[in-house]
Amino acid sequence: MWLRASCTLDFSIPVATPFLLMLRPRSGAQQWVAREQYVLIPSVPAVEFTDLFGNLCQRLVAPAGPFSVHTSADIDAAESADTAPGAWFVAVENLPEVVLPFLLPSRYCESDRFARLAASITAGYAPGYDQCVAIVAYVRRTLVYSPGSGQQIISAAEANQRSEAVCRDMAHLGIALCRALSIPARLVVGYLEGLQPMDFHAWFEAFVAGRWYTFDPTQRDLLGGRVAIAYGRDAADVAIYTQFGDPVEPPIMRVSVSRLDGAPSW
Amino acid sequence: MWLRASCTLDFSIPVATPFLLMLRPRSGAQQWVAREQYVLIPSVPAVEFTDLFGNLCQRLVAPAGPFSVHTSADIDAAESADTAPGAWFVAVENLPEVVLPFLLPSRYCESDRFARLAASITAGYAPGYDQCVAIVAYVRRTLVYSPGSGQQIISAAEANQRSEAVCRDMAHLGIALCRALSIPARLVVGYLEGLQPMDFHAWFEAFVAGRWYTFDPTQRDLLGGRVAIAYGRDAADVAIYTQFGDPVEPPIMRVSVSRLDGAPSW
Amino acid sequence: MWLRASCTLDFSIPVATPFLLMLRPRSGAQQWVAREQYVLIPSVPAVEFTDLFGNLCQRLVAPAGPFSVHTSADIDAAESADTAPGAWFVAVENLPEVVLPFLLPSRYCESDRFARLAASITAGYAPGYDQCVAIVAYVRRTLVYSPGSGQQIISAAEANQRSEAVCRDMAHLGIALCRALSIPARLVVGYLEGLQPMDFHAWFEAFVAGRWYTFDPTQRDLLGGRVAIAYGRDAADVAIYTQFGDPVEPPIMRVSVSRLDGAPSW
Amino acid sequence: MWLRASCTLDFSIPVATPFLLMLRPRSGAQQWVAREQYVLIPSVPAVEFTDLFGNLCQRLVAPAGPFSVHTSADIDAAESADTAPGAWFVAVENLPEVVLPFLLPSRYCESDRFARLAASITAGYAPGYDQCVAIVAYVRRTLVYSPGSGQQIISAAEANQRSEAVCRDMAHLGIALCRALSIPARLVVGYLEGLQPMDFHAWFEAFVAGRWYTFDPTQRDLLGGRVAIAYGRDAADVAIYTQFGDPVEPPIMRVSVSRLDGAPSW
Repeated sequence: MWLRASCTLDFSIPVATPFLLMLRPRSGAQQWVAREQYVLIPSVPAVEFTDLFGNLCQRLVAPAGPFSVHTSADIDAAESADTAPGAWFVAVENLPEVVLPFLLPSRYCESDRFARLAASITAGYAPGYDQCVAIVAYVRRTLVYSPGSGQQIISAAEANQRSEAVCRDMAHLGIALCRALSIPARLVVGYLEGLQPMDFHAWFEAFVAGRWYTFDPTQRDLLGGRVAIAYGRDAADVAIYTQFGDPVEPPIMRVSVSRLDGAPSW
Repeated sequence: MWLRASCTLDFSIPVATPFLLMLRPRSGAQQWVAREQYVLIPSVPAVEFTDLFGNLCQRLVAPAGPFSVHTSADIDAAESADTAPGAWFVAVENLPEVVLPFLLPSRYCESDRFARLAASITAGYAPGYDQCVAIVAYVRRTLVYSPGSGQQIISAAEANQRSEAVCRDMAHLGIALCRALSIPARLVVGYLEGLQPMDFHAWFEAFVAGRWYTFDPTQRDLLGGRVAIAYGRDAADVAIYTQFGDPVEPPIMRVSVSRLDGAPSW
Repeated sequence: MWLRASCTLDFSIPVATPFLLMLRPRSGAQQWVAREQYVLIPSVPAVEFTDLFGNLCQRLVAPAGPFSVHTSADIDAAESADTAPGAWFVAVENLPEVVLPFLLPSRYCESDRFARLAASITAGYAPGYDQCVAIVAYVRRTLVYSPGSGQQIISAAEANQRSEAVCRDMAHLGIALCRALSIPARLVVGYLEGLQPMDFHAWFEAFVAGRWYTFDPTQRDLLGGRVAIAYGRDAADVAIYTQFGDPVEPPIMRVSVSRLDGAPSW
Repeated sequence: MWLRASCTLDFSIPVATPFLLMLRPRSGAQQWVAREQYVLIPSVPAVEFTDLFGNLCQRLVAPAGPFSVHTSADIDAAESADTAPGAWFVAVENLPEVVLPFLLPSRYCESDRFARLAASITAGYAPGYDQCVAIVAYVRRTLVYSPGSGQQIISAAEANQRSEAVCRDMAHLGIALCRALSIPARLVVGYLEGLQPMDFHAWFEAFVAGRWYTFDPTQRDLLGGRVAIAYGRDAADVAIYTQFGDPVEPPIMRVSVSRLDGAPSW
């Protein structure tokens, strides 16, 4: 499935401000970036680096005044997300090293506080993939997906006290519950084709049977058409943008995802 | 200063349980490990790996029954910790990439919530090292160091509501305040010669004038005789041990640090 | 300076063949990628990863038949390469860890065999940048730049026996001589605006006075307009493409670099 | 099998000289370091870091005069090396990223020049482990193991022209032939219990059926009792010591490996 995923951030910057941006989807196992644009207006020097989790990050100092970031990518995304009912739990001692960071509690996923709840939710389910499915069902029972309801980032424990949540909160709760069962889980920030209302999206992946699988508690059916921008332990690792110094007003943000007819020609 | 730093953890394991341990100090810029022991009783297979922050970690499955971990290291530690009054603030755009993870909020250091407090504490201080000194003074005014008072790990925001704290909490608060000023800060877990009562210790480092400097809010004078075991963003990254599965009782723990007469002979 | 750098590789593949490609310039300290295309015809699944040196690499299996790789990037490149006459030599013990791999002998840069020659060439020059300048002058005296003269990759020691060389050989010789003086040096593969005849280009960077500086033994004047695609110890690390299995005919290759009027608009 | 592996390097240093040492075996999947000593006489500041391949390396400046490095480790090593006749070849497109660097030609393993020979040696063997066995047999037919015969490091291509070789040369030739068949292969430097005459040893590992397997062309039977000190693409990556500046005489070197009665007690 060929998609064009774009976003524009329009900032109004009171005084020159350092930023970290995380807005460049990488080609990876699940997606191929065939075309991309990353335009800064006004054009300022920017430096790119790779963070601890392999995400491409951009550093720059936004000048005072209006400042816009436009990105767009034409990407070959998977038609559907793989599912694997019954896929087995990987014992902690057999997990590959690279997934271990996703087993520990993190800023917004206090998995150390979810042991009992996770056990109760998944009682009777086979260890592994089926536990994750039970967790997603619990998150969907507990929280009504309410896009736009959450400004401040809340943690999994806080989300679990509420009745409404944004995609990020639902993913955090799913992640914390998976980790409480010793299933590595990570947050994905990206685009989802057909999301209503269109915006950046967040879901999670869990590591079972030797690979990462996609879970999205906001959606009844696990849709394809996903473009991952960044992976992390939770929202603290994968902010679309981070600013330093005196607070800048949140930008006016426009996100769009549309289908392309096919592979880009040359 | 040559030190022998040792610890013993005596566990009683109800059922075979996977563990991550972080108990092997590495030689580095500040310390040289001349002798080391790491003995598991009973002896079980263990695998070592390096985590995201460069710490040496050990993975093993502790068998049911009594299980002891003994480590000891003879180390050349610095006589005193470097200080640098007046050392300059490094603008975010000039920070080396490797320190950027220590600038963001993390599990127990919600630096995003400390902007106002950090500004108020450091008003009138030169940006950089002197701000860190003012932060340490604030932490010492706010929290009475009370070893043994803290079982559950609390966050910087929670610590800031209290009057007593353990070393880890005081370090977390210092870190959160530094990051709120865009000064990278990281938690160090290790040994401190002469600590009363003797135990593992935690302090923090802040990045100013191009390098890391040591700060320890629990101590009136910044003592030498430190042995770093692990570095991380906060306590979530540098647990001495992490166990998975059903909870195991905390171990009986013995820590000791003694001076050696000089460099080990062969 | 805004440049559009493009290449097309047209392969004729006898039987499905695994490839590694290294054709995606990364934004970095010296260049900003504002637009990019990476089109495979026919479109096949490709996976991207980051190698030991931070280069973005693409893996795919080229299908039997005609197979084309087209890449194009609009990049803000430096107007001129920085120079620093007199910049000091960094003693080995003070070098940052990340540059150490570029101090050792490598596949095509047998720096262990160049100690005497390097000392003789640079006698009387101040340690550091000026030694590198003397080395470049030596390479230019010794080897006539003859684009297209070299099919098989030869080593620095082999190049030093010849009278003609391609850009890669000249860079290898420069690198080996720098390393023989304990100056870290690395190969850069990329584009150079105005190169005659237009092709991929190779030059080198040496680490003096705390940063990397550009040197290009093929050019009388050190021109700007450079787009780095990949960095490595020598040509073994930074092949534009590597194929596995039965040999495939080299592709028909077209490279172009043109100036753009200014920053891309949105 | 519990082993004590020790070495002493006695240098006579004419003028203060920077060194890189690679003498600290790490605990890993195959071995557990229970006790260790690393003593420098005279004691000088040393800094430890992890190289691109995960090896622990030590940097120091050796002072003028006699300088000794003593290391000793008590290690739980495998009784025997795993073998896996018939284990399958992993297609290049399915190899994990971390093994890809071991697929390319390197300083002393010019695998790009061995395609025909590798194909001829392994004709009729099943792809994977059995090809590696055939390669080891070829190396043993071609080269007589002659410890002490090799001072200068020669490459696989050079070794293939000779009739006698040291362990390192035989490993290089094995590695180059494996890589020529698209089987990742890496050099291991370490200790081997019972080696005659006792010295540091080198062997290689090849990646088949999803993991690394040990091969040692110097030994008729694949013995256990191995302690790995360092892994790399070839000898250029894993020198026991590297010195910079004016050449220092090779050290007087003593290596010993002895069996211990059992696990170290506390």
